[in-house]
Amino acid sequence: MFFSFDGIDGSGKSTQMSRFVAWLEQQGHDVVVCRDPGSTPLGESLRELLLHRHELALSARAEMHVYMAARAQLVDEVIRPALEAGRTVVSDRYLLANVVYQGHAGGIEPAEVWRIGRFTVGGVLPDVNIVLDVPPETAAERLRRDETREPDRMERRGEEFCRQLRAGYLAEAAADPRHVVLVDATRGVEEIEADVRRVAQRVIDSAAEVRGT
Amino acid sequence: MFFSFDGIDGSGKSTQMSRFVAWLEQQGHDVVVCRDPGSTPLGESLRELLLHRHELALSARAEMHVYMAARAQLVDEVIRPALEAGRTVVSDRYLLANVVYQGHAGGIEPAEVWRIGRFTVGGVLPDVNIVLDVPPETAAERLRRDETREPDRMERRGEEFCRQLRAGYLAEAAADPRHVVLVDATRGVEEIEADVRRVAQRVIDSAAEVRGT
Repeated sequence: MFFSFDGIDGSGKSTQMSRFVAWLEQQGHDVVVCRDPGSTPLGESLRELLLHRHELALSARAEMHVYMAARAQLVDEVIRPALEAGRTVVSDRYLLANVVYQGHAGGIEPAEVWRIGRFTVGGVLPDVNIVLDVPPETAAERLRRDETREPDRMERRGEEFCRQLRAGYLAEAAADPRHVVLVDATRGVEEIEADVRRVAQRVIDSAAEVRGT
Repeated sequence: MFFSFDGIDGSGKSTQMSRFVAWLEQQGHDVVVCRDPGSTPLGESLRELLLHRHELALSARAEMHVYMAARAQLVDEVIRPALEAGRTVVSDRYLLANVVYQGHAGGIEPAEVWRIGRFTVGGVLPDVNIVLDVPPETAAERLRRDETREPDRMERRGEEFCRQLRAGYLAEAAADPRHVVLVDATRGVEEIEADVRRVAQRVIDSAAEVRGT
């Protein structure tokens, strides 16, 4: 099984993801956690370049391809081998983020990002993308409260960009509700967590059904 | 007008390219010279990563996307503005190299590299790709003679890889003889240069015709 977590920064993604991984492990799943971009030497180099080298100008298309490069390597080195070994993969972001950030909010035709992305990952896509949904104002407020945090390239783009991101996630969830599931992340941590588990449980149950157990 | 030079390392590309640029300038052309990957801050960072960070594992798809990212930025920052200002662009490699290195020799379907590449550059393609054609053995011998040279990631792949590259260039020239022109680069520098000028002159003449001069 392959789960990805997505959502704008400040949606509580990291908190929910680590709780979710702990829950999966308690249930006996052998979990591989990764982040996209990242989790390979190439991916971490490109992540640094994408998020923190603010002096480098990057068009939306250039940015899309750097993310695709990191993901191509992540699939080959980490995700495909883990899935083939029967392990469960949980990724902090994946192709959907590319579609939303460089597509819906960046001006590239989203269908084109999907097309190039599907080719790049050779069909390795999450069983479900769990999108933590919050209004941009809530996310911005949460980020402001954390004073230790240095804003990265994406976070520097401001609230209008965040509104486009959110609209993108909503559009993708409407287009493919089976694979892109929104979870209302304005609530308390436990309530959100319970919803995340419900979404995941459907995937776990249908995987068990396929195996005939 | 937009010219690109291509060919395996050791084909004499750099020598011919600088002679060609000098000739264009003598004829009164306003020339912009670039290299792909490179010629932008992003492109130079990615070039360093691609060619010299040998510790980073890179699949063919990841590699293709890093080249595409560099090229997307090169088109936006350098090539398109130059062409729009009526200048003549000469690039050391371009999309054709991606098609041949990661496509024909790297195992990705060449048509797919063309498709992604055309989208990435928004249709900005050379009027002609001049490919300096030498047998891999000749190229390897030339590179060995230059003892100051440290082999880069591509050059480390050996002679079998070079044979696949050459087959790729031949296939692309056969498929689109108007835009991919082979020049026999086993001969003396002046003979090769004369051929390069003849190929370019056809493009210059037809551009003049279009302008009605």
